Amino acid sequence: MSRFQAIRESAYQANMQLPELGLVIFTFGNVSTVDRKEGVFAIKPSGVPYRDLSAEKMVIVDFDGTVVDGKLRPSSDTLTHAVLYKNWTDIGAIVHTHSKFATAWAQAQRDIPIYGTTHADHNTVDIPCAPPMHDDMIAGNYEHETGFQILNCFQERNLDYREVEMILVGNHAPFTWGKTADKAVYNSAVLEAVAEMAYVTEQINPKAARLKDALIKKHFERKHGPHSYYGQ
Amino acid sequence: MSRFQAIRESAYQANMQLPELGLVIFTFGNVSTVDRKEGVFAIKPSGVPYRDLSAEKMVIVDFDGTVVDGKLRPSSDTLTHAVLYKNWTDIGAIVHTHSKFATAWAQAQRDIPIYGTTHADHNTVDIPCAPPMHDDMIAGNYEHETGFQILNCFQERNLDYREVEMILVGNHAPFTWGKTADKAVYNSAVLEAVAEMAYVTEQINPKAARLKDALIKKHFERKHGPHSYYGQ
Amino acid sequence: MSRFQAIRESAYQANMQLPELGLVIFTFGNVSTVDRKEGVFAIKPSGVPYRDLSAEKMVIVDFDGTVVDGKLRPSSDTLTHAVLYKNWTDIGAIVHTHSKFATAWAQAQRDIPIYGTTHADHNTVDIPCAPPMHDDMIAGNYEHETGFQILNCFQERNLDYREVEMILVGNHAPFTWGKTADKAVYNSAVLEAVAEMAYVTEQINPKAARLKDALIKKHFERKHGPHSYYGQ
Amino acid sequence: MSRFQAIRESAYQANMQLPELGLVIFTFGNVSTVDRKEGVFAIKPSGVPYRDLSAEKMVIVDFDGTVVDGKLRPSSDTLTHAVLYKNWTDIGAIVHTHSKFATAWAQAQRDIPIYGTTHADHNTVDIPCAPPMHDDMIAGNYEHETGFQILNCFQERNLDYREVEMILVGNHAPFTWGKTADKAVYNSAVLEAVAEMAYVTEQINPKAARLKDALIKKHFERKHGPHSYYGQ
Repeated sequence: MSRFQAIRESAYQANMQLPELGLVIFTFGNVSTVDRKEGVFAIKPSGVPYRDLSAEKMVIVDFDGTVVDGKLRPSSDTLTHAVLYKNWTDIGAIVHTHSKFATAWAQAQRDIPIYGTTHADHNTVDIPCAPPMHDDMIAGNYEHETGFQILNCFQERNLDYREVEMILVGNHAPFTWGKTADKAVYNSAVLEAVAEMAYVTEQINPKAARLKDALIKKHFERKHGPHSYYGQ
Repeated sequence: MSRFQAIRESAYQANMQLPELGLVIFTFGNVSTVDRKEGVFAIKPSGVPYRDLSAEKMVIVDFDGTVVDGKLRPSSDTLTHAVLYKNWTDIGAIVHTHSKFATAWAQAQRDIPIYGTTHADHNTVDIPCAPPMHDDMIAGNYEHETGFQILNCFQERNLDYREVEMILVGNHAPFTWGKTADKAVYNSAVLEAVAEMAYVTEQINPKAARLKDALIKKHFERKHGPHSYYGQ
Repeated sequence: MSRFQAIRESAYQANMQLPELGLVIFTFGNVSTVDRKEGVFAIKPSGVPYRDLSAEKMVIVDFDGTVVDGKLRPSSDTLTHAVLYKNWTDIGAIVHTHSKFATAWAQAQRDIPIYGTTHADHNTVDIPCAPPMHDDMIAGNYEHETGFQILNCFQERNLDYREVEMILVGNHAPFTWGKTADKAVYNSAVLEAVAEMAYVTEQINPKAARLKDALIKKHFERKHGPHSYYGQ
Repeated sequence: MSRFQAIRESAYQANMQLPELGLVIFTFGNVSTVDRKEGVFAIKPSGVPYRDLSAEKMVIVDFDGTVVDGKLRPSSDTLTHAVLYKNWTDIGAIVHTHSKFATAWAQAQRDIPIYGTTHADHNTVDIPCAPPMHDDMIAGNYEHETGFQILNCFQERNLDYREVEMILVGNHAPFTWGKTADKAVYNSAVLEAVAEMAYVTEQINPKAARLKDALIKKHFERKHGPHSYYGQ
């Protein structure tokens, strides 16, 4: 068995969850999972429909974006994944989709305001939307720069990627991550649900208020931190 | 067979209806069913995905929120259920979801206006949205206070929980109840349908008028009261 | 075999199409089919979930609303069906649903404007929304009066029920009909699709114009009339 | 085996994808595929539900719209397909649907603005909406003129049908095409996704800006042209 078999298998399983959860059509998304010891990650091959995927087809890439193993070309978003793995050392998996409502917020270039406890159970902040990058970055190493666009947004806003595990890339679409592949995929589905609810909330009440701080804090602490009491 | 087997089974069956009806994803909801003689209720364990549930995993809790039987930690919303069972003695089951449209109304902090007979067949009033609680209540025994927030809303508006079997908790999400687990789950699905229709109604006609009193009365009496003629 | 077996069977089959087409949840709708020679129609029993239906459970009712055969109570909307069968002698079947978007238009008390050829392929007019009835009619024989509310709307607008096979009852929900049960059900699904598209059209362009007359006429004549060339 | 068997089979397979992808209900759409050597195309028969289709039922038509082989009447939109095949010589297949969101934009008579990279991955321009045709064209050979309406729109805007493989026909619905049947169907699904996202984007931010040119160019070139690096 290949030394990359474990991440190939988990990347494959995680990719297959995307169409099941209604987060992608055709080839509109990709998941990668990392092996920190080997310094590589397994990622979906580019442009291959989900129904044709297999663990063997996952491509092994290092943190500079160089293919280490695999016959197919990796996802065109590979360099974005590579930058995030290299800089955020606690991430175990990354998910990119063009899910409908999260993508609509990205296209609208707006952060998703924290309107309720569904959101607060997962994040204490508005879900950030990184601004579109400068033209020279686009013309350059675009996917590489997309990674830095994400890093810069977190740095400027003083966000911790271990607490906020999702972002919208302006005019583009969402990225999420997590310690495990399951958690990263879960975050993509949560983001899509929160994005849809926030959209409908504003339609129902254009003056809807952000959740008050006491509730944000309480709901987050139910699930996170030393006094959490959610889950087993 | 355990003396709690009946409510464990009915709570399990009712919880499993939530994903089937499209009312929850992942672990975003919970159902409990009560045994009034034993003074306990069976509730979903916290953070366990629906596909991993079984009747045996349901947790038995008394009306003060103390676990009586079961190996897992009960839902983080358990104290809210306990308060409602303790104070509303005719309730047989309680459902909590984060269903999309009902939750959007809760986030918008608006009652759902009664716009049509679909609504009137089930309730004669706007579906109440309880205001967010005060900061000191949030910092205190939060889920316990959520129960009182619901009780207080019904008391202030002079509503009868036997007639109005649903509420939105502001900034949070809906709770519904009923004499049986099936009825409580049914109410959650009806609430979600009514919430979506009311949202679209306002988009189509921002000046849509509430249903007139004569129609509210007629439709409710078709299904309820001494002269009802709906059903078998 | 009962002399009512044929309409029982067709009413049963047609009722079962409603949940399959996503037009109803629980018991939110009913279909009836008529036997003109016998002067009776078969209709869904009241409050029975679709999964529990069978042809045998359909109730046989005459045009005055009197039950002729069957053990169960007929749909609470039976008198509305009876009035329509009695007055519109070319109708073979009637469908009533609370489908989401058509019901939202009914709640908004607006006709559905004819915005495109999807609509024009089926109707040359805006889909009428009958105004809510007067209070004394509601307090009286309500479902009977609903039938007259529909008849009156068609008379006042000079519409022919053989050409326009659908209506919204203000604050309530849609009714459709047709020569056959399949056509009546088809009309309910078409109405729902047209209702959703018209809603989205107005969101995209609040000043969207009605379809121009030349296109209305052309598309309707493709499917209807002496020079139709749609279908086999 | 008939010399038309290959296009009959591919037209059949492509037509069957439409309901699977949620792009049509009942008979609201059609696909054709062309055999350039024979100078004919295979198209769905008119008004036949998808579940009753078979490869044998596909109708063979030449570029003037004359039926060459087949027992059934071809789609009422056949002449539109014929005009496009005759004038756009690199097209292999054409798809027409009344998919919800694309049709709503057509009814709103608006181009779909390019708001994000999902759009830019497929087109560098707003998706064009051809204006409704003049009354004399409608009264004349309507479907034939619809073809010219599409051709004229592309000519006036200086668009290349090999680069932009989709259009909205004002007040009507979308048409898409491609070198293969799979690509043409894919384009219909992409158009529907882009149409829905653009609609939601404008709801979230009525002042949403079009994608900037540098990003349009970059994303299109990732998938198209000499330096493309998407796919295998």
